Amino acid sequence: MTCLVVRAGGSRVFPHWKALFAELMPELEVREWDDPTLDPARIDYALVWQPEPGRLAAMPNLRAILSVAAGVEHVVCDPSWSRAIPLIRMGEEETRGQMADYVLWAVLSLLRDAPRWQAAQAAGQWVRRERPPLLSSEMRVGIMGLGSLGRAVARRLTAAGFDVLGWSRTEHTIEGVSCFWGESQRAAFVAECHVLVCLLPETEQTRGLITYELLEQLRQPSGLVNVARGPIVVEADLLRALEEGILHGAVLDVFDHEPLPSDSRLWHAPRVMVTPHVASEASRPARARQVVQTIRALERGEAVPLRYDPALGY
Amino acid sequence: MTCLVVRAGGSRVFPHWKALFAELMPELEVREWDDPTLDPARIDYALVWQPEPGRLAAMPNLRAILSVAAGVEHVVCDPSWSRAIPLIRMGEEETRGQMADYVLWAVLSLLRDAPRWQAAQAAGQWVRRERPPLLSSEMRVGIMGLGSLGRAVARRLTAAGFDVLGWSRTEHTIEGVSCFWGESQRAAFVAECHVLVCLLPETEQTRGLITYELLEQLRQPSGLVNVARGPIVVEADLLRALEEGILHGAVLDVFDHEPLPSDSRLWHAPRVMVTPHVASEASRPARARQVVQTIRALERGEAVPLRYDPALGY
Repeated sequence: MTCLVVRAGGSRVFPHWKALFAELMPELEVREWDDPTLDPARIDYALVWQPEPGRLAAMPNLRAILSVAAGVEHVVCDPSWSRAIPLIRMGEEETRGQMADYVLWAVLSLLRDAPRWQAAQAAGQWVRRERPPLLSSEMRVGIMGLGSLGRAVARRLTAAGFDVLGWSRTEHTIEGVSCFWGESQRAAFVAECHVLVCLLPETEQTRGLITYELLEQLRQPSGLVNVARGPIVVEADLLRALEEGILHGAVLDVFDHEPLPSDSRLWHAPRVMVTPHVASEASRPARARQVVQTIRALERGEAVPLRYDPALGY
Repeated sequence: MTCLVVRAGGSRVFPHWKALFAELMPELEVREWDDPTLDPARIDYALVWQPEPGRLAAMPNLRAILSVAAGVEHVVCDPSWSRAIPLIRMGEEETRGQMADYVLWAVLSLLRDAPRWQAAQAAGQWVRRERPPLLSSEMRVGIMGLGSLGRAVARRLTAAGFDVLGWSRTEHTIEGVSCFWGESQRAAFVAECHVLVCLLPETEQTRGLITYELLEQLRQPSGLVNVARGPIVVEADLLRALEEGILHGAVLDVFDHEPLPSDSRLWHAPRVMVTPHVASEASRPARARQVVQTIRALERGEAVPLRYDPALGY
């Protein structure tokens, strides 16, 4: 019997996973990560979030690792498992749809000065606006990272009336989007944008990529949306850019440390909106469906999309 | 010489209006509302916001009244001016574009629980979400009022992926939008919607239209966006619906009393976002352009759009 071990959401939600897989793939044996009666040699697949380093390497017959999230840095940070084993990112339709909805909301929040109204409401103050807002058609939004999520976001923002640009590691073509690529075109891309949306994977190349110097190059009024991973943005630089006013606003869903510590300056930094890593978290049924599709494809010996490439780091 | 008198924004901004009209229509004489040297008999046109009752009636040769806002209740509440004089609402492209941007932001804020994250951020608390959000395609948004602004909002929400319904006094057809009309279809319309967007004019018929009983009929999770005028919503009913949890969230840009008094319960009501009447306020250049177009059309004896109809009340 094919065996899947689950480390995602803890013991409280394990019965839900088990019920979902029983419905979708009754022939799958589904076991809990910390079950002491489970022989590691029996495990074929692992569905995981932040597995303890060394645990995956101790499963001698593991056929694939399935990340419960779109990012895989929480698995890749463990050097001990064999890179010959496929590692698959989460990324089905619901994940993309939620991300597109969130980013559209975040970009409109920056367009329409929502961080300012939020602060005024907390203080019970009726303030007048400083200047008329741009129209969505006048705001240039740059998507950094044009993978499955980035492309879905670019299409949604374009349909909603924004002027959208994209930047990625390799060349892409998306209808209605001005695409830039590679390190050599990054500065030219940033200089064209009002708002940057970070959808890059966290890798050695992207960690610390968004600095004060980069934010300084944006058009005014400028903004940042981070829905990827906290460490891609240099937090001290972000705070400085906000405090000096060179960055007009930010919407942040991800942080260096999550939960965001209660003493973090980001909670109350000027013109910042904080959300608790909720941009895109597909429902358990949607994720269970992708897991089953992936396992079935692998069992048939087919190639599967969203596979981690060790050479690229994502 | 044709003479326009301006009461919009006060003495501080009058020089800006004067400069704009000097550019757009040099042959127009532009005077300030409270100028004691101006003979009321000389005034041909009045561009106004909340003119003092009786003042318009004292201009014997007035040819048209131009509202600086999309709503005209601030002029209509004065019964003394002759209803034979055309009263024109503001409503050019920029007004519509700003309104569509704001409503899209407001609806996405409700879709993605922004009022909850706002409260959590103010408290410095990382909270987990209660349930996965709907996707925009699963949320049914009902636009009440399908005039120039309502139609622009309906088109934008449809393009952005929402399932849009509309309700208006008389029959309308908008591509991709299920349209209801008249009092007899109102209950059926409301029962189909998660979120109501109020874009009705304030008239005797609409004042107090949105009650607790109406909000109770919405689908869950439910929401309200009011970008029209405060008195259309019964404020006590709105507070009760929020406090009892039958209304999941509200985004409010207009209020019975503006500025919203500092002791209003709405500032801190549960799951409410307050903005200071900023949804749609076209720039002075855009409004000056519409005023000049309107005056030129009236001088040529042409019919002009957006004319107040005393029988309808807007």
